[in-house]
Amino acid sequence: MNKGMTAKGRATRHRIIVAAAMLTREKGAAETTLDDVRAATATSKSQLFHYFPEGRADILAAVAEYEAGQVLEAQQPYLGDLSTWESWQGWRQAVLDHYTELGQKCPLGSLTAELGKSSPQARSIVTSLYDEWEAALVRGVKAVTSDEEEAVRRRARSILAAVQGGVVMLQGTGRTDYLDAALTAAISPLQPVTAGTA
Amino acid sequence: MNKGMTAKGRATRHRIIVAAAMLTREKGAAETTLDDVRAATATSKSQLFHYFPEGRADILAAVAEYEAGQVLEAQQPYLGDLSTWESWQGWRQAVLDHYTELGQKCPLGSLTAELGKSSPQARSIVTSLYDEWEAALVRGVKAVTSDEEEAVRRRARSILAAVQGGVVMLQGTGRTDYLDAALTAAISPLQPVTAGTA
Repeated sequence: MNKGMTAKGRATRHRIIVAAAMLTREKGAAETTLDDVRAATATSKSQLFHYFPEGRADILAAVAEYEAGQVLEAQQPYLGDLSTWESWQGWRQAVLDHYTELGQKCPLGSLTAELGKSSPQARSIVTSLYDEWEAALVRGVKAVTSDEEEAVRRRARSILAAVQGGVVMLQGTGRTDYLDAALTAAISPLQPVTAGTA
Repeated sequence: MNKGMTAKGRATRHRIIVAAAMLTREKGAAETTLDDVRAATATSKSQLFHYFPEGRADILAAVAEYEAGQVLEAQQPYLGDLSTWESWQGWRQAVLDHYTELGQKCPLGSLTAELGKSSPQARSIVTSLYDEWEAALVRGVKAVTSDEEEAVRRRARSILAAVQGGVVMLQGTGRTDYLDAALTAAISPLQPVTAGTA
């Protein structure tokens, strides 16, 4: 999508995406218009269409991709190196803190809802996010267990699902207890057996 | 809400709710109008407003309550008696089958989105559902472990979050692998230690 674009062009495009992300976080994706983005970024209509030929839908898709990246970013540096139990605990806390801070808000969810939850575009962004997230968890599970490939993958998926479930329940109820309990249960089998967990 | 209503009145009200539920399942809650409900139930406008004074929002809230009940219903008879490992396995399979069949559809989600996900009404319905669900899981965890109250509650919450996470990932990607892995991991600590699980 960025091919043939100059470094300056890429920087401008990125600046528009970040500004549009702030807007959709504030107002919700459904309420963010092309004019809002134009005003917030001090760009002309023709400039916007230069970077986002399909207009609003293009911008929202780019913002969704950006927000998907932010989801992973919020879990760093832990997610990138889950090779110790300490790192898993740090990751657990980072996830809990991040979603506690977001509370009822779900930037990516509001965007995929606006793109159409089961639209090919939304699905591709969400699937890529889950895949990248799962790959990082797989590397971590592999590093701290001696499980086989398939067991490692299933463990990683169960941890990822625990996060998603805890978050969706936090958003539905405003309570962080579920995410807390889900994370603890999901990673406890990775704890080195010294004190021992059931 | 039903106080002072005759048995016949309650039956009529229930009939309208069930018909409206079928409609919202087909068309989605956002697209279901009062006229659709009227046509599908062969009731007059004044009859509808007799049973649902606030009109469409009232009907959608009643349908959401009904669908919340259906969520628990789909897990029976297992959810009602999780006192053996066999019952937990039966429950696991019932949950997996139910959501695999629903696939991308999420009747209750479409209703709470239409009521406003963070509206007091939607939140109260969702919170009640989670509470009732959690209570059933708590009874089950208590029956098969010797854990203390707080540990039991956390275990039940982690199992509930595993279901929610697996379902939200199924709806985002069309893949059942996450729900499968999440359920297995969430209930495996409840398995009697004979063959043993990690």
